[in-house]
Amino acid sequence: MRVAVPLDKAYRLINHGPVTLVSAAAGTVRNVMAAAWAMPLDFDPPRIAVVVGAGEHTRHLIDASRELVVQVPPRALAAQTDGVGSCTGRDTDKWSKFGLSWTAGSLVQAPLVDGCVAWLECRLLDEPRMEAHYDLLVAEVVAAWAEDAVFAVDGRSVRLRDDVPPELRAIHHVAGGAYVADGEVFSVR
Amino acid sequence: MRVAVPLDKAYRLINHGPVTLVSAAAGTVRNVMAAAWAMPLDFDPPRIAVVVGAGEHTRHLIDASRELVVQVPPRALAAQTDGVGSCTGRDTDKWSKFGLSWTAGSLVQAPLVDGCVAWLECRLLDEPRMEAHYDLLVAEVVAAWAEDAVFAVDGRSVRLRDDVPPELRAIHHVAGGAYVADGEVFSVR
Repeated sequence: MRVAVPLDKAYRLINHGPVTLVSAAAGTVRNVMAAAWAMPLDFDPPRIAVVVGAGEHTRHLIDASRELVVQVPPRALAAQTDGVGSCTGRDTDKWSKFGLSWTAGSLVQAPLVDGCVAWLECRLLDEPRMEAHYDLLVAEVVAAWAEDAVFAVDGRSVRLRDDVPPELRAIHHVAGGAYVADGEVFSVR
Repeated sequence: MRVAVPLDKAYRLINHGPVTLVSAAAGTVRNVMAAAWAMPLDFDPPRIAVVVGAGEHTRHLIDASRELVVQVPPRALAAQTDGVGSCTGRDTDKWSKFGLSWTAGSLVQAPLVDGCVAWLECRLLDEPRMEAHYDLLVAEVVAAWAEDAVFAVDGRSVRLRDDVPPELRAIHHVAGGAYVADGEVFSVR
């Protein structure tokens, strides 16, 4: 079940550095791509940084709408994640090609990819130099959601569960279609 | 054994989003801290982005020297990683407190933390607005090293091995001393 996450804890959904899917929409056009280079920038206000190449179709949709969703695909979506990261949506409907569906965002027009385990609805902040120079987008998180089989959300507490089934675990991109899956959760305090 | 990594493949050492240790030196003062918010920004020239708070002692050393090392601690250093991320070096010698040692960098004065499994020697690029506004440092990687029991480096090829012993696997910070360790390496192509 998808549950709301307190905004100042939204960083925890991507703090462990998983590969993400970035989705965006402009008008009736929606696209999704993979992005390994995404990370939190601040807790409160919640901000993230993500690299989306200037030539990407998704980037054009983000530039047009100033909105995006950054979401965490589980291992069950590994092949689709690699697939949407390896072709362009300019001439392909990735949704039908990879059997992906989406749900409307609550505050942004960018779609939430179904089957993911965490979603950050974001609005772009104006950092034209970083966008132009590094393809680095800085965005504010305006709504956040988590799959409660993966993240335990209890009031102000949000934590990655230690008993997540293998197919729901986050994956981390190494390179060229190789990924490493989340292993054991442990605490050192 | 520590082996040199081709610069345009340096991103692969942190592409999977592990928690990192950031070290810096100015004069005879050396410090090290933990940073979960680090990621590649570009392949060639190799660049990274890392968040280091303005109040951190390590940040002062980076500001003074314009150099830093971003390195990947394995699970064997989990307690030390959490420890150096939970106190300040302003009034504590973290090296002796946590039993950490270091080796001189090849091109920067920032130290390489012994026992890590990957090291990126970096020089800061001038992005004053990002530094001041987001504590976001943009740096160019000038030398890179990997532990060859963890990364297979063969000429221009660099890949995370699929048989890394548990104590040498990278760890990813969730929050509050909880980490998730690298699990299975798999390919979807």
